[in-house]
Amino acid sequence: MRMARHGATATGGVNRQALSPAEFAAWRELIAWARSLGLVPYTDPIGNLFLRLEGVDSGADAVLTGSHLDSQPTGGKFDGVYGVLAGLEAVQAITESATKLRRSVEIVAWMNEEGSRFAPGMMGSSAFAGAAGMDDYLPLRDADGVSVADGLAAVRAAFPELPQRTLGRPVAAYIEAHIEQGPVLEQEGVTIGVVTGIQGKRTFRVSVKGEEGHAGTLPHRRRKDALLAATAMIQALAAAMHDSDDLVKFTVGKLDVLPNAPSVIASAATFSVDLRHPDSSVLKRLGDLMPDLCSVHAGPCAVTTVELTNARSLEFPGAIRSCIKAAADRLGISAMGIHSAAGHDARYLHEICPTGMIFVPCKGGISHNEAELATPEDLAAGARVLTEVLVELAGPAD
Amino acid sequence: MRMARHGATATGGVNRQALSPAEFAAWRELIAWARSLGLVPYTDPIGNLFLRLEGVDSGADAVLTGSHLDSQPTGGKFDGVYGVLAGLEAVQAITESATKLRRSVEIVAWMNEEGSRFAPGMMGSSAFAGAAGMDDYLPLRDADGVSVADGLAAVRAAFPELPQRTLGRPVAAYIEAHIEQGPVLEQEGVTIGVVTGIQGKRTFRVSVKGEEGHAGTLPHRRRKDALLAATAMIQALAAAMHDSDDLVKFTVGKLDVLPNAPSVIASAATFSVDLRHPDSSVLKRLGDLMPDLCSVHAGPCAVTTVELTNARSLEFPGAIRSCIKAAADRLGISAMGIHSAAGHDARYLHEICPTGMIFVPCKGGISHNEAELATPEDLAAGARVLTEVLVELAGPAD
Repeated sequence: MRMARHGATATGGVNRQALSPAEFAAWRELIAWARSLGLVPYTDPIGNLFLRLEGVDSGADAVLTGSHLDSQPTGGKFDGVYGVLAGLEAVQAITESATKLRRSVEIVAWMNEEGSRFAPGMMGSSAFAGAAGMDDYLPLRDADGVSVADGLAAVRAAFPELPQRTLGRPVAAYIEAHIEQGPVLEQEGVTIGVVTGIQGKRTFRVSVKGEEGHAGTLPHRRRKDALLAATAMIQALAAAMHDSDDLVKFTVGKLDVLPNAPSVIASAATFSVDLRHPDSSVLKRLGDLMPDLCSVHAGPCAVTTVELTNARSLEFPGAIRSCIKAAADRLGISAMGIHSAAGHDARYLHEICPTGMIFVPCKGGISHNEAELATPEDLAAGARVLTEVLVELAGPAD
Repeated sequence: MRMARHGATATGGVNRQALSPAEFAAWRELIAWARSLGLVPYTDPIGNLFLRLEGVDSGADAVLTGSHLDSQPTGGKFDGVYGVLAGLEAVQAITESATKLRRSVEIVAWMNEEGSRFAPGMMGSSAFAGAAGMDDYLPLRDADGVSVADGLAAVRAAFPELPQRTLGRPVAAYIEAHIEQGPVLEQEGVTIGVVTGIQGKRTFRVSVKGEEGHAGTLPHRRRKDALLAATAMIQALAAAMHDSDDLVKFTVGKLDVLPNAPSVIASAATFSVDLRHPDSSVLKRLGDLMPDLCSVHAGPCAVTTVELTNARSLEFPGAIRSCIKAAADRLGISAMGIHSAAGHDARYLHEICPTGMIFVPCKGGISHNEAELATPEDLAAGARVLTEVLVELAGPAD
């Protein structure tokens, strides 16, 4: 609740964009809490924040846990921030119980997971894992024309005392705690979701180019109406992506029109496509249809379809899943296997180290919404399981 | 060309929004020119600017001429501003030739004709003509939340020396010069369009209310996707408004989405509808379909359709049209009757006094576009005809 004050909206939600003053304020509070526990903060070139609990064997690869502090524009209090704070609670329990661990444990807040200020999302984790380079991200700009490079310069200016390490390093394991963002745990009455894997996701940016004209004078046969063409594409895509089993997740969440004036025929319309499916082969087939479907419905306009993300469906290793399940069992907390329909930074960490995720229920499955809610009891249960798992993965000091 | 520097865009157009600093700069330059000709400037409560050439009979109702200085966001150099500057040229010719007129002549720049900053447009002329009250407009806000009342306070602060008269008064006649914004005069090789009338126009704002949700997790059967519903409505409206004669002008130029993030299902989408037809009965029939068509395609979302403008088709009086045609004939400038597909401030003046319009060609019929172009020769010809008409309507001094 204290973290949710940073970027708080008037209607009970959170708007805490990546590399914004609100996120800096969240960093400041988090770093103060971490220092009081004896953790050492540092950052890296892509703006990830790490808080390190030194292990007995300083040279051993660290165990990482965390998630992200940035939110959707009208986001909730739990998405992302819970994974960071659960890590902090876990480390506090470890230090207060005077438990000595062999490996260092690092809490991490990844930069721009949501992708709402800068697209695509998961910039921090993908750059850390080597799936993308700094050069891919630095020139990208937000809606106000501010680049990622500008945003990163602002971080360095706001936190000049933070040591900066080089990008990426070997990691012993990564565990991410998160609210489920779906209704399954609540419906099943189970507290812990042992995440089995993450469904695949492809994202696109479709840019439609038309021609400006006067709404009262230009005959339709001579128009190149970019907004009309974009709406035709979106309807056609929605129809093509429909499946009666409701497994395909197709979303156009963002649409920007130029000049966006009531009596001017639109010269440009740009929209996002977010496409997900648990089966990688279906995802490939449907995503591959995208450029042609857009072209076919472009009418007199020109259209360009750019793929921004292509992430296959993945399965987390059995050893990590067993470790999470065993920890819940030892604590007497109910647990079940669950597939993640949402993407997470764990997707990229999975490529470089043994990775797993712990889900806790959220009310009504509501997320990416100011009404997002989770109970203190469930959040605490998730942090307890996380603590057990981190202790096991970091290993005893002797 | 000097006026076009105020709000000039990098790509050769003009972005001069109503009551903005760019429009204030245009006012300042225009007032300086007018003062050098001996005209007296003043304003009124709705932010119209008047420049008065005093007639011999000060008590007689004045002849008004003008148009507007505000532009579309990516507008051209001629739309609106030509009518104001043609009036200034006419008055300059009258004063330099020492012609004495019985009636005063006033050049007017109406506030917010375009309706691109504040919707609806033609605020200044409609309030002047009594078709709307100040209370209808003062609370309306632009995209940044600035109200018309705030904008008008900014005018008064920027021009404290301008006398302010009460809103509206009897007018002897109103003549508006304007670029055609269509291709007819150019195609016909004719210089002057004697405008016969203005086609009717209805505008609507359609607000679709959905529910935010996570693009990766929420099943489609539980979604209330406001953007998907809005695109379905726009496609259905476009299909219903289609006519093979291409007389119906149906345009959705503005669409705003909330929260407008790629991985969030849209909670709200608001779009404009601009519908025009030369036949008032057809316009009525088609416009009346609007609310039901939107409701039918709302799916799980709620929809509200608000009508912002309902202006019937109108015909200018024959006496004014004859006066314009005769002036062109006397000057040896070709002229023809032409219907205006675009709306103009003349629509509202028509309700309170004998009104007419003079069109000049614009290149390719292109307007509401930065590429808008007209030749110095055609613009001068229009100003010459306007001068003749103003002299005739204002009458000789004795």
